[in-house]
Amino acid sequence: MLYHRIEELRVEVQKWKKEGLTVGLVPTMGALHNGHMSLIKKAKETCDKVVVSDFVNPIQFGPSEDFDKYPRTLEADVELCDKEGVDIVFAPSADEMYGEGQRLSNDTLTYVCPPFFYVNTLCGKSRTGHFDGVCTVVLKLFNIVQPNYAFFGQKDAQQVIIIKKMVKDLNVPINIVQCPIVREESGLALSSRNKYLTEEGKKDALVLSRILNNIKTCYEKGITDVLALKETAYSFLTDKHDLEYLEIVDRNTLEAKMIADDESIALIACRVEGVRLIDNIYLKED
Amino acid sequence: MLYHRIEELRVEVQKWKKEGLTVGLVPTMGALHNGHMSLIKKAKETCDKVVVSDFVNPIQFGPSEDFDKYPRTLEADVELCDKEGVDIVFAPSADEMYGEGQRLSNDTLTYVCPPFFYVNTLCGKSRTGHFDGVCTVVLKLFNIVQPNYAFFGQKDAQQVIIIKKMVKDLNVPINIVQCPIVREESGLALSSRNKYLTEEGKKDALVLSRILNNIKTCYEKGITDVLALKETAYSFLTDKHDLEYLEIVDRNTLEAKMIADDESIALIACRVEGVRLIDNIYLKED
Repeated sequence: MLYHRIEELRVEVQKWKKEGLTVGLVPTMGALHNGHMSLIKKAKETCDKVVVSDFVNPIQFGPSEDFDKYPRTLEADVELCDKEGVDIVFAPSADEMYGEGQRLSNDTLTYVCPPFFYVNTLCGKSRTGHFDGVCTVVLKLFNIVQPNYAFFGQKDAQQVIIIKKMVKDLNVPINIVQCPIVREESGLALSSRNKYLTEEGKKDALVLSRILNNIKTCYEKGITDVLALKETAYSFLTDKHDLEYLEIVDRNTLEAKMIADDESIALIACRVEGVRLIDNIYLKED
Repeated sequence: MLYHRIEELRVEVQKWKKEGLTVGLVPTMGALHNGHMSLIKKAKETCDKVVVSDFVNPIQFGPSEDFDKYPRTLEADVELCDKEGVDIVFAPSADEMYGEGQRLSNDTLTYVCPPFFYVNTLCGKSRTGHFDGVCTVVLKLFNIVQPNYAFFGQKDAQQVIIIKKMVKDLNVPINIVQCPIVREESGLALSSRNKYLTEEGKKDALVLSRILNNIKTCYEKGITDVLALKETAYSFLTDKHDLEYLEIVDRNTLEAKMIADDESIALIACRVEGVRLIDNIYLKED
């Protein structure tokens, strides 16, 4: 049930489709944790067959980012997927995905480019080209697997919004299912990058969820002025925290807001021990 | 058999697919001529069902180009398709394709961007953003129709090469079929834009195919130096001809060549009576 080759995977999925079975795709970069497992469980509930892709996508990392040291735990991932009843783990090489010896740049590769207004904000500001790389690999995976449903976590909120926008703009015939953030008991949002943190760092990282929860509480108490809501964060921050952004925007369009409302989402990115962490919260749950 | 709505079309095509029928798509901007009809005939030969899309795509025209005056002959197009046994003509509005009131720019729309090396040459040099618009609408049509085969004319050589590259780079599960250029008896390549020409202009326009044929003849006689081959063109040109480019490049990658070979293609773009015309020829036929 572990495939490395596009053609092998396609043959298998085509068989399922001919039998009229529905297919779910959970795109991951591996290093699976309970956040991923919640997506996989949702996929198993929703679809007859489930494919988990496990691919650290080089074109979504910037030159100074952590592509080389990004955790790779394929064997453990396959075991976890097995236990959960995943039908195929798809773990292609970069050559298989992008062509052998292909230079990975928009000089020589076709890219999918999400709208400037969706990219030039939040994570996109510091991660130039990141969402082009994400959309490109996700569309490739969509075309390779041709699933009926694809599952993404709300943890990467900007990513889900951009992928939903891509699906709409390009008429991709796939249903996107968004699943809630999974947290440790402490409140820390699960992330493959948490592995980089010491125990001390994990404690400092709790500030992200605390800031967001506090903003939500303040909103529920009637504070809607975005600047006032954002200011409530500063009492939580110490010199252990290198805040990249804290924003309150529309949860569908990412449009900046002056006044928060029930459609607002608060998002934070902050470095702890040099590790870039993100988190977010809806000011009003669905 | 004329559909304007994406959902109507999808329902019909899904019925076919469930019956195991193969589907061919011929994407056009309407104003159908015998060039298009040759694509449609090929599609009918190849597939059980044929969809012709008829959509003048706003996002592939530059601000100073002929979007407004581009010929629109939907009624005649439908009649021609009917005679040829086309199953569906798909003629959506711009609102249907891009969302009502949507501003058509990469600020707010997801685009498909072909590689810089494929775009920054030939027609792409003077038509900024043109091939982004082409790839975006073609991928949308691919996702809407989900055909097994799609048919394109070699007349727009750079376009076919870029679309083949997109299909490969994004793993689009569709076979691209390229069909030869159809010409008037005079040698003039058929084009919807020929309608803009006077009889006099049509005669002047013959220079494009003459230049290309002459280059091919010279190549067959053993001249391979690209500069020498290009120089043979100048004796044909008069003050009626506003040459935009004449290039000899690799027919798969569009890479410029110093020495022509059997994989070379000669391409020309030239204005006659202000009308931009293009044509091309393989130095060695398949």
